[in-house]
Amino acid sequence: MGGMSGSPHFALTLSCPDRPGIVAAVSRVLFENGANIRESNQFEDQETGTFFARIEFNFVGDDRSSSLRSNFSDAARDFGMTWNIRDLSILQRVLLLVSRDDHCLADILYRWRNGELAMDVVGIVSNHPRENFRHHDFDGIAFDHLPITPGAKAQQELLIEGIITQRKVELVVLARYMQVLSNDLSIKLAGRCINIHHSFLPGFKGAKPYNQAHARGVKLIGATAHYVTADLDEGPIIEQDVERVTHRDSAADLVQKGRDIERRVLSRAVAWHLDGRVILNGHKAIVFAD
Amino acid sequence: MGGMSGSPHFALTLSCPDRPGIVAAVSRVLFENGANIRESNQFEDQETGTFFARIEFNFVGDDRSSSLRSNFSDAARDFGMTWNIRDLSILQRVLLLVSRDDHCLADILYRWRNGELAMDVVGIVSNHPRENFRHHDFDGIAFDHLPITPGAKAQQELLIEGIITQRKVELVVLARYMQVLSNDLSIKLAGRCINIHHSFLPGFKGAKPYNQAHARGVKLIGATAHYVTADLDEGPIIEQDVERVTHRDSAADLVQKGRDIERRVLSRAVAWHLDGRVILNGHKAIVFAD
Amino acid sequence: MGGMSGSPHFALTLSCPDRPGIVAAVSRVLFENGANIRESNQFEDQETGTFFARIEFNFVGDDRSSSLRSNFSDAARDFGMTWNIRDLSILQRVLLLVSRDDHCLADILYRWRNGELAMDVVGIVSNHPRENFRHHDFDGIAFDHLPITPGAKAQQELLIEGIITQRKVELVVLARYMQVLSNDLSIKLAGRCINIHHSFLPGFKGAKPYNQAHARGVKLIGATAHYVTADLDEGPIIEQDVERVTHRDSAADLVQKGRDIERRVLSRAVAWHLDGRVILNGHKAIVFAD
Amino acid sequence: MGGMSGSPHFALTLSCPDRPGIVAAVSRVLFENGANIRESNQFEDQETGTFFARIEFNFVGDDRSSSLRSNFSDAARDFGMTWNIRDLSILQRVLLLVSRDDHCLADILYRWRNGELAMDVVGIVSNHPRENFRHHDFDGIAFDHLPITPGAKAQQELLIEGIITQRKVELVVLARYMQVLSNDLSIKLAGRCINIHHSFLPGFKGAKPYNQAHARGVKLIGATAHYVTADLDEGPIIEQDVERVTHRDSAADLVQKGRDIERRVLSRAVAWHLDGRVILNGHKAIVFAD
Repeated sequence: MGGMSGSPHFALTLSCPDRPGIVAAVSRVLFENGANIRESNQFEDQETGTFFARIEFNFVGDDRSSSLRSNFSDAARDFGMTWNIRDLSILQRVLLLVSRDDHCLADILYRWRNGELAMDVVGIVSNHPRENFRHHDFDGIAFDHLPITPGAKAQQELLIEGIITQRKVELVVLARYMQVLSNDLSIKLAGRCINIHHSFLPGFKGAKPYNQAHARGVKLIGATAHYVTADLDEGPIIEQDVERVTHRDSAADLVQKGRDIERRVLSRAVAWHLDGRVILNGHKAIVFAD
Repeated sequence: MGGMSGSPHFALTLSCPDRPGIVAAVSRVLFENGANIRESNQFEDQETGTFFARIEFNFVGDDRSSSLRSNFSDAARDFGMTWNIRDLSILQRVLLLVSRDDHCLADILYRWRNGELAMDVVGIVSNHPRENFRHHDFDGIAFDHLPITPGAKAQQELLIEGIITQRKVELVVLARYMQVLSNDLSIKLAGRCINIHHSFLPGFKGAKPYNQAHARGVKLIGATAHYVTADLDEGPIIEQDVERVTHRDSAADLVQKGRDIERRVLSRAVAWHLDGRVILNGHKAIVFAD
Repeated sequence: MGGMSGSPHFALTLSCPDRPGIVAAVSRVLFENGANIRESNQFEDQETGTFFARIEFNFVGDDRSSSLRSNFSDAARDFGMTWNIRDLSILQRVLLLVSRDDHCLADILYRWRNGELAMDVVGIVSNHPRENFRHHDFDGIAFDHLPITPGAKAQQELLIEGIITQRKVELVVLARYMQVLSNDLSIKLAGRCINIHHSFLPGFKGAKPYNQAHARGVKLIGATAHYVTADLDEGPIIEQDVERVTHRDSAADLVQKGRDIERRVLSRAVAWHLDGRVILNGHKAIVFAD
Repeated sequence: MGGMSGSPHFALTLSCPDRPGIVAAVSRVLFENGANIRESNQFEDQETGTFFARIEFNFVGDDRSSSLRSNFSDAARDFGMTWNIRDLSILQRVLLLVSRDDHCLADILYRWRNGELAMDVVGIVSNHPRENFRHHDFDGIAFDHLPITPGAKAQQELLIEGIITQRKVELVVLARYMQVLSNDLSIKLAGRCINIHHSFLPGFKGAKPYNQAHARGVKLIGATAHYVTADLDEGPIIEQDVERVTHRDSAADLVQKGRDIERRVLSRAVAWHLDGRVILNGHKAIVFAD
């Protein structure tokens, strides 16, 4: 992960109908504009006839990204591309939402500090007070306690939306935020809001999935990180993982083991998103994992 | 796995309401009857207040299992035990049912030959002809081709049931047998018929689960071995496992990777059942894995 | 993990030459002294003819542990047992040693706070200053900065030994403490000092194991938690785990992935030790994992 | 795995000093010669400044591979490339070497039959007689029993070498062939002879590695598939995997569990080699796994 944070380096991501000549055209433009390819991934979806690529590059000499961008748009037009060139050294602005359980938050903050998650955390919002997180050094990150009062959930969400707008938030991470976002907000945040779903998805939906899993006597439990969509828990899957459990594990044990899975699955998904490694393919996510 | 096949060695399995003194009583009877404990597992289910144990033992001198059995029944009565003492050196009589796909069958036969699955295979039944399995050396095992003709599924099942009765079958393994057993037969075989469910259970049920998994863009696929019950695919889970997949994997790739998971999950479940390591706890299975 | 912290509950651990009657005798004493068995594990080592057991129990009524202890010693004598009865609700006194890298420390402190690691942390010692850990809330735990000056390593170790003695430390955790303990101290701490070895043991020993692993082009990296012995990195193994890596991973990437493995392997080993689930069997560790 | 066997489809693999313009040049030649890229992988080794790529393609209309090859050699010369274009629909000629244990052989034959391993098995050679494999249907594959008599190991190897030459063998798979190849033969077969090493490499070398692992009390065992080099067990690693073991596992249990790991690790390595997914990078192997 990570790599060259500091000096400018870029990720070009693109998708378009698959046909011969795409790579030739793309790599020619990159070469002619002085780009030095550092890592390249592509995927040809035979089912939908769609081509996807992510190319990471830097410039050996001057930063010629603006001329590259304008030259690239011509090629992109010819192939009907959806594309984006992003300077990975410019950190994305991230908002963390969290409820009472802080295991995912703790893990994200730890990785943010040690550089594994290169991002600009512009805020932490919780429906629980700062006191709930008293052992965490937020290190200057703004914290907003936005409690939910009966009948006033919509107002609370408006406040969150205000923060997203004002702080120019690019990615929202639901780090065990136990409130369902409204359809409206889910749609606004399409492709830039990541949730962690405890227990293995698809599988046990609804309340208390670990209790359901325990009642069913499963031998594996898991977690799924996915983009939030209006259709709750059905957004594109970014990452999943599992751990083995036995009949000895109580529902409480599953919750504890689940914490470990959740934190690592969510952190991986966030890292890949930040690095531009996740591209949507309809209801699915292509992940060019590092 | 395995261990001492050949000379007599026994597995005592029991369950009863949990209360002090069970282990003391059980181990006293074993000791007084000359049993030498080789392996012992127990589980106290705090939720239901039930005690479960499996104790593997042999006799240093004479086989005193019949006196042990009669002495044990007194202790068992006091504690309201469900119990069983089985000589593991007497191989269980197993019937394998299989449809076209032979990967689970191949794995089971391989492990049967090399001693990993100590059992007496008394028959292989398929709704596909012997020719479908032409590369397999059945090594004298009776093979019955019982095709299913339209409207005559019930008759075919009666033939299977006849085989089960006549050959005194103790365990039926559905090694990718793609026919649903009737409620009646499922009930008759309760706790002694193991199925392998492709894809991860619970999760994708119904037809073509790998296609469903592919359409959903999952990052893990799995398999579940479980006892057959009248409630299809909802029987007690014995074993599960998963493997990682990516966006590159087509539905056909998932099927291929699924084969590897299915064969190892089913073989493990069968091995544990044969060794008396699986005890039912309501709708769940306690597995004292080795 | 965890379970019933708060009210007294006990772990009896024992080992002795294997012969018939041990379990009968042990469970009789427990029963007659009012012990209610909650969990029981045993292992018969056929190679060395040694019996090992761990029995977790509580008392339904009064705490009769002192009478149990005295009654038990008679039985223990008959069987030549090494044994111990410990009240798990009395937290063990633990000293954490750490150098610059704080990932294991962070994980241990997190699990200590949320109750996964039930222990009494009586001190954190580092050869690096408090400033190195400035983002950590030590929450009142004494911190000692014991730098190592050239030629004065022995003196520094004496200070550590002093802390161990004065604070009645029962377990020392080397949470990525990069200094080799002297033979003397290793021997004094035999069976109560846990180290985490980065990279997979046995395998790459010596300096910079991740660089060695990278140079070798391995496809898996791992970590090993083990008891410290005078023979560096050769102590009894408590837990190991691995993760997949590819040719894309630089040595720095291996270090990063290694951090995740190290922290979870060390935390698991510490949890099992605290719960009395690890029993030494010569140079090996028996782990009755939960 | 697999995919389009049947109609011609090609894998271009290449490596060269990394500099801007490689991908542009390569993809231009492919495009101008009618190649339709199906899958593409590349890797820029920052340490050695070397570029590696594998591009899988077919032709929508006529097979223009011969003109492509000649056009490609010009581009290749400019960049100092080592390269190869191979028609994946032309099966590689493979020789299997095996000793007494047949678990890897059984797995390879099974996957060969069901199409997972698309190859032309031109022979099976063993130092054990055909009777040792009596349950296997070799399905017309030539079998040679080449026993090793005292003092005549070199002669036996000459016979193997003769078979390799006469049958134009492209890949030799040591499917648990327990004889060490001579330096000479190892050098001749560099990069086209795959071995499976039981136990985890690096780690336990020498005789009876599972016994060593058992004596050490490891919690994981593994297997490594690697290219054979004159330096025994030190060849480039293609694939590794592990499984969890406990103190309950005897050395014999490790051997049994090891069989499962060995067969799947070897089969994966062979599949990737056949698909041209493994490229040597000095002493390491780049694996563009599917």
